Amino acid sequence: MPPAEPLAPGSLLIAIDWGTSSLRAVAMDAQGTILDRLSSGDGVMAMAGRDYAAVFQTLFGGWLARWPQAVILASGMVGSRQGWREAPYVSCPASFEDLARGIVTVPAGGGRLLGLVPGLVSLGDKAAPDVMRGEEAQVFGAMKLGGRQEGVFVLPGTHSKWVSVSDGRIMRFSSFMTGEVYGLLKQHSILGRLMPQGGDPPFAQPAFEAGCALALDDAGGALLHRLFSVRTQGLFERFTAEELPSYLSGLLIGEEVREAIWLLGERPELPVQLICRADLALPYRLALGQAGLDSGVIEDAAFAGLFEIARRNALLS
Amino acid sequence: MPPAEPLAPGSLLIAIDWGTSSLRAVAMDAQGTILDRLSSGDGVMAMAGRDYAAVFQTLFGGWLARWPQAVILASGMVGSRQGWREAPYVSCPASFEDLARGIVTVPAGGGRLLGLVPGLVSLGDKAAPDVMRGEEAQVFGAMKLGGRQEGVFVLPGTHSKWVSVSDGRIMRFSSFMTGEVYGLLKQHSILGRLMPQGGDPPFAQPAFEAGCALALDDAGGALLHRLFSVRTQGLFERFTAEELPSYLSGLLIGEEVREAIWLLGERPELPVQLICRADLALPYRLALGQAGLDSGVIEDAAFAGLFEIARRNALLS
Repeated sequence: MPPAEPLAPGSLLIAIDWGTSSLRAVAMDAQGTILDRLSSGDGVMAMAGRDYAAVFQTLFGGWLARWPQAVILASGMVGSRQGWREAPYVSCPASFEDLARGIVTVPAGGGRLLGLVPGLVSLGDKAAPDVMRGEEAQVFGAMKLGGRQEGVFVLPGTHSKWVSVSDGRIMRFSSFMTGEVYGLLKQHSILGRLMPQGGDPPFAQPAFEAGCALALDDAGGALLHRLFSVRTQGLFERFTAEELPSYLSGLLIGEEVREAIWLLGERPELPVQLICRADLALPYRLALGQAGLDSGVIEDAAFAGLFEIARRNALLS
Repeated sequence: MPPAEPLAPGSLLIAIDWGTSSLRAVAMDAQGTILDRLSSGDGVMAMAGRDYAAVFQTLFGGWLARWPQAVILASGMVGSRQGWREAPYVSCPASFEDLARGIVTVPAGGGRLLGLVPGLVSLGDKAAPDVMRGEEAQVFGAMKLGGRQEGVFVLPGTHSKWVSVSDGRIMRFSSFMTGEVYGLLKQHSILGRLMPQGGDPPFAQPAFEAGCALALDDAGGALLHRLFSVRTQGLFERFTAEELPSYLSGLLIGEEVREAIWLLGERPELPVQLICRADLALPYRLALGQAGLDSGVIEDAAFAGLFEIARRNALLS
């Protein structure tokens, strides 16, 4: 493949968060004011066998005509091997500038280029490299939005990420399969059969806190064992069917917090900065609180991150 | 419900291992010699809405006519709330005699009674009671077959059990959801998508040992994090698609062994007695060996356990 053409600076930014299951985008002026928004279900998973340039034209043709001077940046799985084109992982520690140097461009039609922001690889762990793609833009956005260049940033979710930041750089991070394991156990395991079918029942805070306390209290870690207690708590009617999903969630999020603190090697001094939707923030704040950690929440940081990547790298003028 | 009629002694034993997914039975004389065998797919799961007594007559009518003096005992989920009738859990510590006192009988047709061996509940854990049903007969059988009334007995499987035995009594035990979590991750998770579809590829010992070493080495336990390494080991081609199931298995079995040793509070002094099929024994023996523990294997202990329960309680004459 020929080396990609570099992005030219512009006076506006089209920022795209193009993930596995969906795509969200904003158009921003050089001051970061949002001019328009767009979203679509054409995530990378829905793109199998389709032409990225054609889908891009359909979605963004109007914006491209309206803003001929816009720089276009996309973060997320669109830059993976399964996406439009691979933007190879950049190694930690990584700054805004390191990330910008890893941008790979693709022709987006009409002579325009789209810049794919690379993901990050963290080699600090003895076991295996750890990777993220899309979350890096959110962490850089959260640094800007929160005015803090230090500390631990946490992105809860299917594969939660705990990210250590120092002096504005992402130093290292660890992934946790918390959300996916919760979904698997709830939908497909013997534990799920004890729970109400269909949607999630309301959050049961005492059950969540009981699960969480148990996980945090296990200095030696005992997740494979503790999971079985979901069954016995149901069998001995200590929790109702409606409370069991919250108990399971507490066991898993408590375990994530316990593992993460252990892997960090020290307790975070600054409040932990959560980056997530409001509905995930509550259980994580409770679990962090039970572990004696303060926390704050930033709800949506991807576009702020892409804006800062563009601005700090002289792509916006 | 009226109190159940007690079992009368007999000169033979029909021993039934009646679990969730299948049923196996033997007829034995008073010396334990096996006279006949029988198996069926009519496990408790297949019995929903059907009449136990009628199914029992269909399966065992011939044996009942042939051996009118046989005592009939069944262990396993047939004695659960979802089974024929509930034989309430007996608390640990529990001996052969304690188990026999908990036997609940049901009319099995033609004036005969069937004795349902109760499961055990272990209350030693701070979290929640732990339960087993069917495994208790196997552990008592393994004590007899192995000639050992002390030590740690392990039943690997969907929900592995680690059982502490002292002076011929089951003192306490812990369950681990190892097998079920492995199946869920392999069949339904993002990790499974990196693995060959269909049946299991051949066991890859180096990949298994790498996963196992990692899990055993994590003094703080980090399963939710380590699971993600299955993805990155694949992504960075450290293991092939064919090797990844063995790597995942090593992570999980290693974690089970690590958790179990931690929960026991001390390292077992005697060799760990595995009770399982030969195909599960290899990975468990490797994992135990990596943790510095010797082990032995007994393949099939349920019938020996039922025989001893009958013999020690004067039900066989």
